[in-house]
Amino acid sequence: MDALHTDLYQLTMAAGYFHRGMASRVATCELFVRRLPRRRRFLVAMGLERVVRYLEELRFTEEQIAYLSALPALADAMTPAFCGYLRDFRFHGDVWAIPEGTAFFANEPVLRVTAPLIEAQLIETFALSAINHATAIASKAARVVLAAGDAGVIEFGTRRAHPEAAIDAARAAYAVGCVGTSNLEAGMRFGIPVLGTAAHMWTMAHPTEQAAFEAYVAVFPSAAILLVDTYDTLVGAARAAAIARDKLKGVRLDSGDLAALSVAVRRILDDAGCASAKIVASGDLNEHRIAELRRAGAPIDLYGVGTDLVTSIDAPALGGVYKLVEIGDVERGAGGERTPIAKFSEGKATLPGAHQVHRFRDRSGKLARDVIALEGEPMSPDAEPLLAPVMARGTRVAPPEGLDAVRLRARAQLAGLPDALLSIDDEPEQGAPFAADVSPRLGALVETVRARVVSGAGQR
Amino acid sequence: MDALHTDLYQLTMAAGYFHRGMASRVATCELFVRRLPRRRRFLVAMGLERVVRYLEELRFTEEQIAYLSALPALADAMTPAFCGYLRDFRFHGDVWAIPEGTAFFANEPVLRVTAPLIEAQLIETFALSAINHATAIASKAARVVLAAGDAGVIEFGTRRAHPEAAIDAARAAYAVGCVGTSNLEAGMRFGIPVLGTAAHMWTMAHPTEQAAFEAYVAVFPSAAILLVDTYDTLVGAARAAAIARDKLKGVRLDSGDLAALSVAVRRILDDAGCASAKIVASGDLNEHRIAELRRAGAPIDLYGVGTDLVTSIDAPALGGVYKLVEIGDVERGAGGERTPIAKFSEGKATLPGAHQVHRFRDRSGKLARDVIALEGEPMSPDAEPLLAPVMARGTRVAPPEGLDAVRLRARAQLAGLPDALLSIDDEPEQGAPFAADVSPRLGALVETVRARVVSGAGQR
Repeated sequence: MDALHTDLYQLTMAAGYFHRGMASRVATCELFVRRLPRRRRFLVAMGLERVVRYLEELRFTEEQIAYLSALPALADAMTPAFCGYLRDFRFHGDVWAIPEGTAFFANEPVLRVTAPLIEAQLIETFALSAINHATAIASKAARVVLAAGDAGVIEFGTRRAHPEAAIDAARAAYAVGCVGTSNLEAGMRFGIPVLGTAAHMWTMAHPTEQAAFEAYVAVFPSAAILLVDTYDTLVGAARAAAIARDKLKGVRLDSGDLAALSVAVRRILDDAGCASAKIVASGDLNEHRIAELRRAGAPIDLYGVGTDLVTSIDAPALGGVYKLVEIGDVERGAGGERTPIAKFSEGKATLPGAHQVHRFRDRSGKLARDVIALEGEPMSPDAEPLLAPVMARGTRVAPPEGLDAVRLRARAQLAGLPDALLSIDDEPEQGAPFAADVSPRLGALVETVRARVVSGAGQR
Repeated sequence: MDALHTDLYQLTMAAGYFHRGMASRVATCELFVRRLPRRRRFLVAMGLERVVRYLEELRFTEEQIAYLSALPALADAMTPAFCGYLRDFRFHGDVWAIPEGTAFFANEPVLRVTAPLIEAQLIETFALSAINHATAIASKAARVVLAAGDAGVIEFGTRRAHPEAAIDAARAAYAVGCVGTSNLEAGMRFGIPVLGTAAHMWTMAHPTEQAAFEAYVAVFPSAAILLVDTYDTLVGAARAAAIARDKLKGVRLDSGDLAALSVAVRRILDDAGCASAKIVASGDLNEHRIAELRRAGAPIDLYGVGTDLVTSIDAPALGGVYKLVEIGDVERGAGGERTPIAKFSEGKATLPGAHQVHRFRDRSGKLARDVIALEGEPMSPDAEPLLAPVMARGTRVAPPEGLDAVRLRARAQLAGLPDALLSIDDEPEQGAPFAADVSPRLGALVETVRARVVSGAGQR
């Protein structure tokens, strides 16, 4: 049912390839980010699983074909033969990708699709949507998780994101190390721990805070995390401790000077025999506020982070692009010639050919160097290739990866980044951001293709 | 199926109200924005239709109830009686709202829900998600449309937004005056005109630009808008005109100095007898770039705007909140007392009671003053009340409004804003942003409730 989650021009071009007999030429396209966003020192790959599911399920319904047939822009092209093509459409391509949870950088292909030209084209928009969104959120969430250190981060942002985007944001956040989400649908769909506390509305719906806390503890004797800042945080904390006693699971602070309040509240809870009660803090938090609170020694166990995380507010759009890098004259497997393709326009240059990214680490296991090479180019055995096969001829090569596996990978990836990349400082560094090198063979190919294009011969 | 598109704590509180015998107390909640985002001088209400559909369809499935029952946080509360309550759940509330496409400001309730407490509570998260997202996009898109003047704006941003968020972004953009979208699903779902042009990949998949254009025109003789900047924009424009001749519908420029190139391309097209061919421009556009191009006299007919619009990139999160403003001791209709509720915490104060917003215009029809009053408070007959009834006892009071009606309203609303509010200048003005006044009765009620809360009596 996702077949129309795309731009009109993908269908226009698909029809064009079909009518020009080009539908089954084999093409390779790659998805990459040209430049890291300002305020990001690395990106964390996310969204692949959603793309693979889309590719597996991609079908055009009769209603969709009828809709397309009625569009003026497609009127010339919706012949019975092309309608038949859409009716039978299946994705038959090979997909390689950098696995979810992996740190990556500018120009490194995070997705590589080799498929009949028409299929490689049609999937562009959805692949970009899903990966741009999820990767933006994952990369922001990674910064928040890093800032929180051994304190936990709960994703709390559903109300500030589109209802469906919020669910994928919760997934991305958990995948890079948040301990849970407030979003129930994300919990049910992806098995993410769902966490929450009492709310202001509960307190305000009761005549007094005392009555509200008593009522809450009566209903949730074993799971009460009380929100204590509605009237006076310290009075609220003492009241919570007096009412729930050693059963109090925690309190939440949502306003005020969180550093000072958390210290005072911790003392109140400890003095009242609630040493095991956690302190949850929330309220316009992000990686910078959390780092500040931790520097100040705030005894906060869990940070609820919402708006800034689910909108990646300081880098809200990730500019991933999807570009043709190679095209074959004939169908795949028929032994035809493949032509590497590139653009050389200023600021929009692309690398020709199908690529693999090789990662080199230093002796301590930290990322030292990435090299973008041609697929199949020999490389030192020390190098770790980042792209792995995901689909072959339209079928998954392995079952979907569990979210816990992604989480473990993300944790290892963050641990393997050098300190300079782990800094959440927004100020631009001396020098350029970390960027991959280009391998010797790829460098030579760039020059060959550039000469061909500049000579006016076009792509071939 | 949207029932779990919410935060855990809504279910926790719902269970709490249920077990404490408070489920059917009548509550009124209002959704509003506390402060306009920086870089916004007005907001345009959007997202209501999605919320109403959610309220109409809100049901808990057996699978969802089973999932909730297994959650540790709800273990205390998922009794057979509460499971039965969820199984039979329907929304029975009254809803008033500021119609989609209406300009509004800080503290003005855009949605007002009067319902049994448990229902008013449960819907909070979804209502906020849908309205915060759509209103943020609509408010950004309105600025872009204003900047474009009599040129058209096409929403092109699907690839830079979550796949589902992109569809609602396309709807919001069209609703405030964009002429169409590239998103096919948005076109099919909402009847929005779908627009597009050729793409770089089409050109690059052919040996030469000449071959690419010839092929495109062969397939789309009556609908060719060619992308001419792949190699050399002026050469490309001349080639497009030579190949498509008087059938050329347009060309698209996606890079370079759009002001200079559009002038040169217009001349090339006119000289070649393609006077009716349109010039479409795209490439990192927003309201500021468009205003600059128009000041420079660029003969651009249509602006394709993507990333900045669909992410509302300069104000990516709208901080709408949903607050309890009144609660009744007994069920609605049973004649019980209603207590107005408010918070007075610094920066988070709310207005007690159920409200209506009254808009006053000057003689030229321009917005002069908004007044937030108590519902039912007498007001001058010149005032236009902004909130209208949408649902009564869980049922729509009228069929869903068509998108064309929303578009007409948005156009009239923008035309009715004073010049100072229509400026897209980001620099803060002298003085405060436009804000509604508080009516005399509401002002008096604020003081009464404040005295009650400050005296330590709590809400009642």
